[in-house]
Amino acid sequence: MLEELKEIVLEANLELKRKNLVIYTWGNVSGISREDGLIVIKPSGVAYDQLTVDKMVVVDLEGNIVEGDLKPSSDTATHLVLYKNFKEIGGVVHTHSPMATSWAQSGRDIPCYGTTHADYFYQEIPCTRIMTVEEVDSAYEVYTGKVIVERFRDKDYNYTPGVLVAGHGPFTWGIDPDNAVHNGVVLEEVAKMALNTFLLNKTSKGVPDYVMNKHFYRKHGKNAYYGQ
Amino acid sequence: MLEELKEIVLEANLELKRKNLVIYTWGNVSGISREDGLIVIKPSGVAYDQLTVDKMVVVDLEGNIVEGDLKPSSDTATHLVLYKNFKEIGGVVHTHSPMATSWAQSGRDIPCYGTTHADYFYQEIPCTRIMTVEEVDSAYEVYTGKVIVERFRDKDYNYTPGVLVAGHGPFTWGIDPDNAVHNGVVLEEVAKMALNTFLLNKTSKGVPDYVMNKHFYRKHGKNAYYGQ
Amino acid sequence: MLEELKEIVLEANLELKRKNLVIYTWGNVSGISREDGLIVIKPSGVAYDQLTVDKMVVVDLEGNIVEGDLKPSSDTATHLVLYKNFKEIGGVVHTHSPMATSWAQSGRDIPCYGTTHADYFYQEIPCTRIMTVEEVDSAYEVYTGKVIVERFRDKDYNYTPGVLVAGHGPFTWGIDPDNAVHNGVVLEEVAKMALNTFLLNKTSKGVPDYVMNKHFYRKHGKNAYYGQ
Amino acid sequence: MLEELKEIVLEANLELKRKNLVIYTWGNVSGISREDGLIVIKPSGVAYDQLTVDKMVVVDLEGNIVEGDLKPSSDTATHLVLYKNFKEIGGVVHTHSPMATSWAQSGRDIPCYGTTHADYFYQEIPCTRIMTVEEVDSAYEVYTGKVIVERFRDKDYNYTPGVLVAGHGPFTWGIDPDNAVHNGVVLEEVAKMALNTFLLNKTSKGVPDYVMNKHFYRKHGKNAYYGQ
Repeated sequence: MLEELKEIVLEANLELKRKNLVIYTWGNVSGISREDGLIVIKPSGVAYDQLTVDKMVVVDLEGNIVEGDLKPSSDTATHLVLYKNFKEIGGVVHTHSPMATSWAQSGRDIPCYGTTHADYFYQEIPCTRIMTVEEVDSAYEVYTGKVIVERFRDKDYNYTPGVLVAGHGPFTWGIDPDNAVHNGVVLEEVAKMALNTFLLNKTSKGVPDYVMNKHFYRKHGKNAYYGQ
Repeated sequence: MLEELKEIVLEANLELKRKNLVIYTWGNVSGISREDGLIVIKPSGVAYDQLTVDKMVVVDLEGNIVEGDLKPSSDTATHLVLYKNFKEIGGVVHTHSPMATSWAQSGRDIPCYGTTHADYFYQEIPCTRIMTVEEVDSAYEVYTGKVIVERFRDKDYNYTPGVLVAGHGPFTWGIDPDNAVHNGVVLEEVAKMALNTFLLNKTSKGVPDYVMNKHFYRKHGKNAYYGQ
Repeated sequence: MLEELKEIVLEANLELKRKNLVIYTWGNVSGISREDGLIVIKPSGVAYDQLTVDKMVVVDLEGNIVEGDLKPSSDTATHLVLYKNFKEIGGVVHTHSPMATSWAQSGRDIPCYGTTHADYFYQEIPCTRIMTVEEVDSAYEVYTGKVIVERFRDKDYNYTPGVLVAGHGPFTWGIDPDNAVHNGVVLEEVAKMALNTFLLNKTSKGVPDYVMNKHFYRKHGKNAYYGQ
Repeated sequence: MLEELKEIVLEANLELKRKNLVIYTWGNVSGISREDGLIVIKPSGVAYDQLTVDKMVVVDLEGNIVEGDLKPSSDTATHLVLYKNFKEIGGVVHTHSPMATSWAQSGRDIPCYGTTHADYFYQEIPCTRIMTVEEVDSAYEVYTGKVIVERFRDKDYNYTPGVLVAGHGPFTWGIDPDNAVHNGVVLEEVAKMALNTFLLNKTSKGVPDYVMNKHFYRKHGKNAYYGQ
């Protein structure tokens, strides 16, 4: 079932490796069929060079395994919370890519320091709050998703397709698994530049809103004029 | 038309990728035929591995498409301002290379910290002012060029073949597209060293003028003695 | 003798190079046969691309060469102290990998800044004290092991499979040579992220204990649920 | 003439590229035949992938071209001063490798922060003083060599086979061209670690002298016991 989506999710997982966002098994990509209400996700702890289409795991929105011989990613519950709350996304990515993870570990939002950021992420790339002991001990992966959703209460997830989970690392999403990976690569690059910018100018507030808006809307929305 | 220049511009665009100055479609190179008053430039948003000679776009100095099926780079208007004001340049490069972009985001000139810098760029590598809301909202890409030209009012663009656009990233230029790319690679390397130098010694003023002059003129001008 | 272990140790040494933990001859891996009371270790100062199975050196727990034409690693005595005191380990790795070595040179423990760290190392990655002149002058490599063991007096070496020797560099260990190398790769990645985290937030205390525990025990112990 | 030395010098120049110490033409290696009083050096401004044995230039100790169709490196005069004053060296390397150059630009010695440094360089890796305007304007490349020699008045060049020329970059040397390149690679790695160490601990004084001595003499001198 969902053979095409499995191929897409497999390829997106392999792309994490090609783009140097992961070492060993430190990341996972999923994709959703909204029509079927089913998610395809990487199996837990399987090396990228061992991944094949038939190892992909199909789960429903409650996390029940619908097809597959392997256990799904231990982060599956987080992916599910995101799919249930961010109704228009088609793919989710989690990695421990080093620069984004460094920001997540610092507990700080990445300010919109420039147009590279604004081309993809509207305003800051937010960092969640630290979860409470009750949240961590009861249903850690579910609450990882919930603190992300909470952080987006006043933000548009379509405009800012990524987040830093405090003390943990980045999640990104997109219209499909490929787009979610693309946003993960960009987040890592933006995080690297942002660290350097911070070191050069610790009081920088980033670009003015009108510059951020110009760049974001050059690539997004009905008046976009970037690309073909 | 301009088949030779198209080949040169194509190769220069591919060189951006080979030298790791760009990911995805984050950069563009153009070249000019001064004789014909025509510019060849990368199409907007096309991946480097999809680029071919016949996808290059030919525009005139007012930005009208003279040949080509694709839209030119969204930064075309900036390139045009540079060609119109810097009469001796033959190629222009724009990237979001990470170290130069970090400096641009910090809003700071790169001081001439050493002879590597002085071998290619005379004095500081300047950073423009932030554009006003009127400039951004009326003709953003044109004003991107204009703030560069403004910044060079008292500087020789032949001696300092590159600039940081505040909050955005670097532009470099040269006698031809290859030379402009070469200067882009050097700018990135110089920016990396300059960040490290700043971290090691925050009060450094850079090399004395007589050292800077020695190195610059060792490679440039009628008394140059570097190379064959 | 010990042909299978020699193969494993050879491969683990070559993996140091593939993972960019070493340049030239700056690292060594050993493995132990607890049954035989014998260690297989890299020969001293031999380039990785010159290593072959028959160049591996077999020593007993007192450091006597039991088989092999070459001198064992100059760090052999340190490996032996670790095997004698950490009874359950099967492999030891020493490198000068740059980020871990930078922390070792700074004389500081790596705080548990995030879940990447907690997935592999329980609590801080400790840094030893500086050895005394008497220790260095009498039996340097033995005391290198002894200060590591001393630092683990109140720590579980199975839970924190790595250490920074102050002013020197990292040692990691594991259930076998492969696992010890894996831990060395992770330590380097964690050290890189930790430096960046420190630069972004100099007062960070790291993740709360309950987050650290959650992640550590997600992958370790009888209630682990990561992987297949 | 000197065909074997030319081969060695050619290979050593190519090794600079393989080890990522240089981009474009930013470095040069020379070797000396003490017997003949002749130096073989890279031609000026020739790309590494264009280098061949017959392009190597032979000069005498006064800098006269003895054989070769091309101009020797513009830094030849510096190499000559080093060969004349450091009587036991057989090869000299100059690069603009980024981390070592960053330290040179900061005008600071690299402290002996750890054993990686002490394995190769005794005590600090020194930085020269800035040259005077008279020195720069009269015979720049000669004085580049002279300030190096001046900095070694109280240091043993055999024990510390490298230097940072303030505001410029590193020179290393060794018993032959290969060894000089090896020392250049190590200097770059040590410089990288030293920057990180400095960022982590700005007041570190480095390892105690007895640790430095232990490591240095483990690899050097009559009591060395590292290697085969």
